[in-house]
Amino acid sequence: MRELDLRRAFTLIEPGPVVLVTTNDGRKSNIMTISWTMVLDFKPVFAITTGAWNHSFKALKKTRECVVAIPTIEMLDAVVGIGTCSGEDTDKFDRFHLTARPARLVGAPLIEECLANIECKVTDMIAKHDIVVLEAVAAHIEPRHKEKRMIHAVGDGTFIVDGRRFDRRKQMASKLPEGI
Amino acid sequence: MRELDLRRAFTLIEPGPVVLVTTNDGRKSNIMTISWTMVLDFKPVFAITTGAWNHSFKALKKTRECVVAIPTIEMLDAVVGIGTCSGEDTDKFDRFHLTARPARLVGAPLIEECLANIECKVTDMIAKHDIVVLEAVAAHIEPRHKEKRMIHAVGDGTFIVDGRRFDRRKQMASKLPEGI
Repeated sequence: MRELDLRRAFTLIEPGPVVLVTTNDGRKSNIMTISWTMVLDFKPVFAITTGAWNHSFKALKKTRECVVAIPTIEMLDAVVGIGTCSGEDTDKFDRFHLTARPARLVGAPLIEECLANIECKVTDMIAKHDIVVLEAVAAHIEPRHKEKRMIHAVGDGTFIVDGRRFDRRKQMASKLPEGI
Repeated sequence: MRELDLRRAFTLIEPGPVVLVTTNDGRKSNIMTISWTMVLDFKPVFAITTGAWNHSFKALKKTRECVVAIPTIEMLDAVVGIGTCSGEDTDKFDRFHLTARPARLVGAPLIEECLANIECKVTDMIAKHDIVVLEAVAAHIEPRHKEKRMIHAVGDGTFIVDGRRFDRRKQMASKLPEGI
């Protein structure tokens, strides 16, 4: 994995993919599948919706750190599996044959099998809406990861994979942040 | 357009598409392109990130109503165009040849050319993060709209269209809300 310019980290979240969020509570690591995410700023700051219904939430709240990992379509069944079992009684890295790698700035692990990993610090928690605000502190991408197509959850048990890409850079130039 | 079961409205936002958000300030209607959205609950409640940098924000704040419309891929250039000009000096319905239709419960208009339209009330504004919380009060879908593929913004001036759909309803059954 190579370091990704932090200014580009939001481009991994903006398309709206399902992500895997890792935490480590000091004893063990866990993963949750999250589809409810939103970019808040180019800084990069973004939000996820999660709460006590996720076992990982306790570790997230305690450590105020996590890694947001971006899976691609060949990982669909792991993504679904991770989202439908609990870290309370399951070692998800073991069960889904995923490799935890140490992150650079947070205690939560990177997932080696993912296309990209974003190390995040929790900067705010809006309990009323179950919104957790994250600031990316480091990002990594695996250039040798051949499959680049992300997964989008519809919310009804179906998932949509990325299709063709359209270039509108010229038309969008006035709206793009510097360095993108 | 036919009425869509409100319980299904979140399935239009969860995949992470670019949306068009309409407002009406009492004098005229406007449209903004928003890629920063997030489902908050199945109710359906969701969030968008917007602020004073969007001309529509003033009307959204004043009326506390909007329509979230879902464009499909044949509308890509209108979506980009709407996002790169301002309602301050442009009638965007006119300029992009879009048809405003009266909504049922809010003053903001539906966009007839879109696949679906969700009428929303603003239930909260989190100024610190520029988050606007919306509750859907009515939803409409156009079954005759042949093109169903949504658009995902990457944030760097490129856009990705929906590809193939994968069915994991059986594996996801324990996690799906009733009636979905």
